[in-house]
Amino acid sequence: MLFRLPIRIEFNHCDPAGIVFYPRYFEMTNSVCENFFREVAGLSYAMMMAKGEGCPTAGMEVNFHAPARLEEVLDWRLRVTRLGTTSIAHRIEAHGGDIHRMTADLTQVYITAQGRPQPWPQAVRDRITAHMEAPDEP
Amino acid sequence: MLFRLPIRIEFNHCDPAGIVFYPRYFEMTNSVCENFFREVAGLSYAMMMAKGEGCPTAGMEVNFHAPARLEEVLDWRLRVTRLGTTSIAHRIEAHGGDIHRMTADLTQVYITAQGRPQPWPQAVRDRITAHMEAPDEP
Amino acid sequence: MLFRLPIRIEFNHCDPAGIVFYPRYFEMTNSVCENFFREVAGLSYAMMMAKGEGCPTAGMEVNFHAPARLEEVLDWRLRVTRLGTTSIAHRIEAHGGDIHRMTADLTQVYITAQGRPQPWPQAVRDRITAHMEAPDEP
Amino acid sequence: MLFRLPIRIEFNHCDPAGIVFYPRYFEMTNSVCENFFREVAGLSYAMMMAKGEGCPTAGMEVNFHAPARLEEVLDWRLRVTRLGTTSIAHRIEAHGGDIHRMTADLTQVYITAQGRPQPWPQAVRDRITAHMEAPDEP
Repeated sequence: MLFRLPIRIEFNHCDPAGIVFYPRYFEMTNSVCENFFREVAGLSYAMMMAKGEGCPTAGMEVNFHAPARLEEVLDWRLRVTRLGTTSIAHRIEAHGGDIHRMTADLTQVYITAQGRPQPWPQAVRDRITAHMEAPDEP
Repeated sequence: MLFRLPIRIEFNHCDPAGIVFYPRYFEMTNSVCENFFREVAGLSYAMMMAKGEGCPTAGMEVNFHAPARLEEVLDWRLRVTRLGTTSIAHRIEAHGGDIHRMTADLTQVYITAQGRPQPWPQAVRDRITAHMEAPDEP
Repeated sequence: MLFRLPIRIEFNHCDPAGIVFYPRYFEMTNSVCENFFREVAGLSYAMMMAKGEGCPTAGMEVNFHAPARLEEVLDWRLRVTRLGTTSIAHRIEAHGGDIHRMTADLTQVYITAQGRPQPWPQAVRDRITAHMEAPDEP
Repeated sequence: MLFRLPIRIEFNHCDPAGIVFYPRYFEMTNSVCENFFREVAGLSYAMMMAKGEGCPTAGMEVNFHAPARLEEVLDWRLRVTRLGTTSIAHRIEAHGGDIHRMTADLTQVYITAQGRPQPWPQAVRDRITAHMEAPDEP
């Protein structure tokens, strides 16, 4: 099942060419993951921070297909592509109108306060698995 | 030849875990490319903007090897890996102390004001080629 | 009448002390003004950009009363305090829970593509005036 | 004595109008203060973070006199205007070429890990006082 988040492009996101400055796309990919973890996985970044844990991004492959402009509403779509023991991989896409703007394949690792990978809690794994198996909303 | 740029990690770059927030790394990769174009290629982003041109990033593959912390000075290193007719590919690395923190393989395309790829000006191509062939500084 | 915009505090906004980094508050004040202009005044920043116009911020006085933390939803409130011929002044406040976090008194000037102050269009003035005279929603 | 920091305006700082986006000015004022504390006061933000302390900004008054553009080098100038028991006030100015771009009068408070104001350490007070009494460099 897709997790979706609409984000309107604001002044803040745009560069002197009037299009989204690519580092701002990553503020958006981070926001999409952050909302996914809070809403879907039941494990918010604030809960992780309170324990000193985290889920940093280990790597990503990104393609920018078409620029996005001020005031467009981007339809962000996250699909979990792999749930590992201590990691998670997502395909994240931004669409605006009917145009596909960017794709990011991104991996996060769940780590302890000491920075070592740790297994997802069972409740979190169950919630993410249920989400992965649920059908997309129409 | 390597193009190098030192950047000290400041409050601005760090997240609640006290490490560099990954979207800020991309502000830094952009800065490294921007300084490379101005200093090495003789084609600054301001010169491009004045003509409505640009060299947006088409895609990248990124790996985060180790976190970077507040007050460290990152040694950013850019090496041109391919100079195409209308594009350029770089390997960009950040090192802090003796530790390799991140690697980005990144492609930029040189575009007209209408958003179409255009060949690099000969003078720009010559300067980049000369830089690629020069030996690294010790 | 108050213009309100809720913004959830995300990783992106927070510093290593786990509280909102003050430059991020200004991304939020800018977003509040940008949404006010699009929704209330009927004059979006994209419309201004298309003509080369703008409404840059001329000055502000800001007080930070209490820190805001990750995952709180800030209730942003903008009240127009003065509509001049070519300028507008707002009081902007952020509240989280029952706690008043910050106040900004901020002035914007409406300028031509040549950077000179220009009078608000009558339709814009009428919409803002009607908004100022409307009662607050309960 | 003035504390000075040059910052070149990069793509990262500019908005679709091609001028510095005002929230980015505050990333710069923060950087100026951060460098002042590390270099002049001998009390870096990293040292504060390690103890859970900090020196958040309590308030500021800001005036934007003239826009700054891509590739200009801003000459940032900080002058301490008042060193209180638990606070410090600065006048911070940005000049580019011979043009004065912005002024910020800004107050920071030195706080404990519990968020309460605390007196500056004597060594820090001594260093800041010596700096305040030193003549400006020519």
